[in-house]
Formats: sequence, structure tokens, C-alpha cells
Amino acid sequence: MGPIGLLDGKIIDLNENVIQMEDRGYQFGDGVYEVTRVYNGRCFAFNLHMDRLYRSLRELRIPATYTVDELAEFHERLIAESGIKEAGIYLQITRGVAPRAHGFPDNVVPKLTMTIRQANPNNNLREAGATGIFVPDVRWMRCDIKSINLLGNLLAKQQAKDAGVFEGIQVRDGIVTEGSSSNFFVVKDGILWTHPLSNLILKGITRTVIVDQLVPQLGLTLVEKTFDVAFVKKAEEAFVTGTTTEIMPFIQLEGAPVGDGKVGPVARKLHQALMAAVARECGTK
Amino acid sequence: MGPIGLLDGKIIDLNENVIQMEDRGYQFGDGVYEVTRVYNGRCFAFNLHMDRLYRSLRELRIPATYTVDELAEFHERLIAESGIKEAGIYLQITRGVAPRAHGFPDNVVPKLTMTIRQANPNNNLREAGATGIFVPDVRWMRCDIKSINLLGNLLAKQQAKDAGVFEGIQVRDGIVTEGSSSNFFVVKDGILWTHPLSNLILKGITRTVIVDQLVPQLGLTLVEKTFDVAFVKKAEEAFVTGTTTEIMPFIQLEGAPVGDGKVGPVARKLHQALMAAVARECGTK
Repeated sequence: MGPIGLLDGKIIDLNENVIQMEDRGYQFGDGVYEVTRVYNGRCFAFNLHMDRLYRSLRELRIPATYTVDELAEFHERLIAESGIKEAGIYLQITRGVAPRAHGFPDNVVPKLTMTIRQANPNNNLREAGATGIFVPDVRWMRCDIKSINLLGNLLAKQQAKDAGVFEGIQVRDGIVTEGSSSNFFVVKDGILWTHPLSNLILKGITRTVIVDQLVPQLGLTLVEKTFDVAFVKKAEEAFVTGTTTEIMPFIQLEGAPVGDGKVGPVARKLHQALMAAVARECGTK
Repeated sequence: MGPIGLLDGKIIDLNENVIQMEDRGYQFGDGVYEVTRVYNGRCFAFNLHMDRLYRSLRELRIPATYTVDELAEFHERLIAESGIKEAGIYLQITRGVAPRAHGFPDNVVPKLTMTIRQANPNNNLREAGATGIFVPDVRWMRCDIKSINLLGNLLAKQQAKDAGVFEGIQVRDGIVTEGSSSNFFVVKDGILWTHPLSNLILKGITRTVIVDQLVPQLGLTLVEKTFDVAFVKKAEEAFVTGTTTEIMPFIQLEGAPVGDGKVGPVARKLHQALMAAVARECGTK
């Protein structure tokens, strides 16, 4: 059997045609998603992902038709059926199928689709340090909703790809917001900075783990305030964080070295602490 | 047979499952669309729609895999097979299926889906005049691309629906941009005003027909400049335009009458001129 997916609780062939053309996910991007990282066959920070998923559904008034326990069971089944123990599990819920009209339809049944894929931890790049560029943040004003309206994010990533770098760091009205699928941090004068939570960024799960657990644990000082590109250019360190990305340090932004041009100690310590949190929760070594 | 659709040139049952869950249209909203109005069995302003479609594809670097002649033939086939002579034909092209990653994949085959539905000209509402509210414009910064990232538009329309009015007129940074699926015009001191073409609005086909053909034909004066909500409140007339909407006059915005609270002469004349253009092109009476 080839790669598998899951449709409304049922394991299917990933390449099966399972969606109608009038699914509102397909015609409007009317849906939300989560990507959960599986280590050692166990989902990391699963409840944080579920909290965010249900919030996204509420914000778009998509009814929640599955319980957290059911979704947990679907994740476990994908891991068991695929045999993949180091994985990314993608989960999407759309509003469902209805004749095309902009307003929310009545009596529509949300559609759940999930996939599981081998994770690529990208540890070589993490050791060497990544490169990035700044790109315009052209996304909508509700980046706090983890919706499948992702064209702005795609264009940011594609600009990075075209430039031959790892990530595009988005800038809106002069303010650095976040990466194309990651949150952005800098270390300046020993202090950690990141964009505050607002409608302009996604509340990343790795960001939450860093802010709530790792920063106090490591005795770091964190400032959640906006900053501009000039500020980043004077920083000692810069890195992005995300469920798939974990913590990825930059050694170069816009072709210029970040700090001394080597992977910095704060990014390194945070990644070690993140992996220790993963080990405690998922039983990795 | 129930309602039909068209998938990559083949007529299908609209409710058939024809899309894979990893279609980038489904996971990212990575696609573009057009809606063409059919009068008397013929597509109105078809070439304008096709010009805009190919521009949208170019802006997102989605390869054009069908010629205009092929797409014209698909439209004709949907009209013939369905027997619907007063119709809206929906056409969507997504980048196609690929393992989920933000950057554009290589060697991906775009996917074309189309539907046809009976048009609802809404003439009773046009005669009586419609109602509207102002809503925040939360969309992205590339509203000039007719993409399927439409959540901002959906939220605008849903706010109108919740308020019991016809349309939500979007306002960004104090400037009135356009409706949730329509362009917005006002008449002030006898002069027609609409938002200039930019990244903040869609270049509507009906807008183009009005600006390029009907305004000179009727000897009207048009200003394509930005204006705010206060300006609208002092206007004699206000209306929205669109392929499906045609020209829809407001008699009330935010609960207050527009002008004298009746359908105005400019909106009425423009709609008559639009219908005359339709008659010439599509052979309607």
C-alpha cells in the first residue's frame, strides 16, 4: 500500500479522490488545519494543537463535529497503520460541501482529512545554520486563525526558494512579523525578542512552549514587542520556530551575517531544552 | 441526472468525488477562478474573463494548460449538456496535487473544475433597492488576483447576512474598497466615483464594461479615486457591480437612506445600458 490518509475517521489511500469540487475548502479555502509532530510514535504538545484547532473553528463558526478524544484516536491510528514513528500529521477541517455562495450555508457537514508523512528534522541545516531574506507580508488581517487561506505564506516561501535561502521573514508596515510557516525571534543585547500575539501572527505551538516553559526554565529574558528590520540587523542571533521546523537558527539574513555569522548559544540552548521537553513527553532518548 | 460539473474537459456528476486531499487548492487555496454569466445560452464578456484568468495564473505562476478556445468549448458544452440558458458558469484552476510543502512544486499538473448553475438575476431586489453595511476589509494585499483564498470575502458577506442586509462594503484604513464579491460606486454631485485599480481591489468585469463602454456611451463623468465612509454618506447614489450582481443599487446603508432613499437614475441608466450591451452580444431581447 502507498501513503495513507484519513477521511472522516476512515483510513484511505492518500491518492484516492475523496473531495467534491463544491467542498468549500476547495472553492474558498474555507477551513482550518493543524500539523502535529510525532516523536517516537507519540504526538508532542497535542493538547495545545487541539486548543488552537477548536479556537480556529470557533472563529470561523465551523461546527466541531469530533471530540478531542476522537481526533487523538485518529492520530494514533495513522501512526499505527503507517508504521511511521517520526512523523508530521496534517489535519484539516473544512466547512463541507454546499452550492457555491459566500455566506455560511445551513446544514452543512464539515469534512475532516488527515495525512501522515515521515518527518525531516533537518538537523544538518540546524547545525550549519540557515539563511533567510525579508519579504513583504501580504497576508490578511486574521493571521491568528490557522486557516487554509495560505497564498500569502506560499508567496513568501517561494520568494525564499527563488533566492536560494531557507525562509522568507515577513515584514508588514516596517514591522517584522514572522516566517512563512514559523515564528521569528531575535536575541539583542542578551534579550530574546519576538512579535507580540495579535491578529498579525499565528500563535505557534513551539512559540508557546518557548514562552511558557523554556524561557523561565533557562532563566532567559523575553520581550514580546514589535521590532523592525534595522533592529534585526543589529541582533546577535535570529531564529525561527515551528512544529516542523523546531528551532532553526539563521547565520545569514539578506546576504549579511547574523551576529558573528555562527549558530548562536541561545538558539542552541533552546533547541536542546525543546528536545528535552520532547523526551519527557514522548519518551525519546 | 442531477447537476453536472466538468473536470479537465470531462462532464461529470457534480457530486462525484474528483479531488484528492493533497490538491493544493484544498490545502492552501492555491488556485484561481472566474464566474462567467450566460445570457440566452451565450457567455457575456467572455474574453475579458479569460484575460483576467490568464493574468491571475501568471501572477501565481500556475502554468496555463488550456487554451482560450478549449475553455470556450468547455463553457459551451456545460450550457448544452445542462440545458441552462440563463446561468452562472464557475471555473477554477488549482496548481494540482503534490506532497504538502509551501514552495511551488515541480512537475505538478493544474486541475480544472467547472460548474454551471441557474442564474438568479434578483430583479425584484434591483427594483426595490438593496441594503448594506460597512465592514472591515481584512483581506490580503493582492486582491487584484482572483484567487480562491476567499475567507476575508466570506466573513464580509456573513456579517452582512447576520445584519439582514444584502452586501458588506469593505473599508480598509478608512477607505472604502469594494463589496464582498462586487465593486462599489457612488454618485456624488452628479459624478460617478469608484476605487482606483490597485492591489486592494479586484478588476471586476462589470466594472471594466462600465468604465470602458457605458460611462462614455452615457456621457457620464467618472473619477477613479479613493473616498471614505463620510463621502459615501453624502452621496446621492451608491451601488455595487459584478458579473452575478450586474448593477445593484442601495437605498439604505448602515440603516440610513442613500440620497432620497429611492433607486437612483444613474444606477438605473447603467443597468439598462448593461442589459443593452448584453442584448447586442448575446442576442437577448
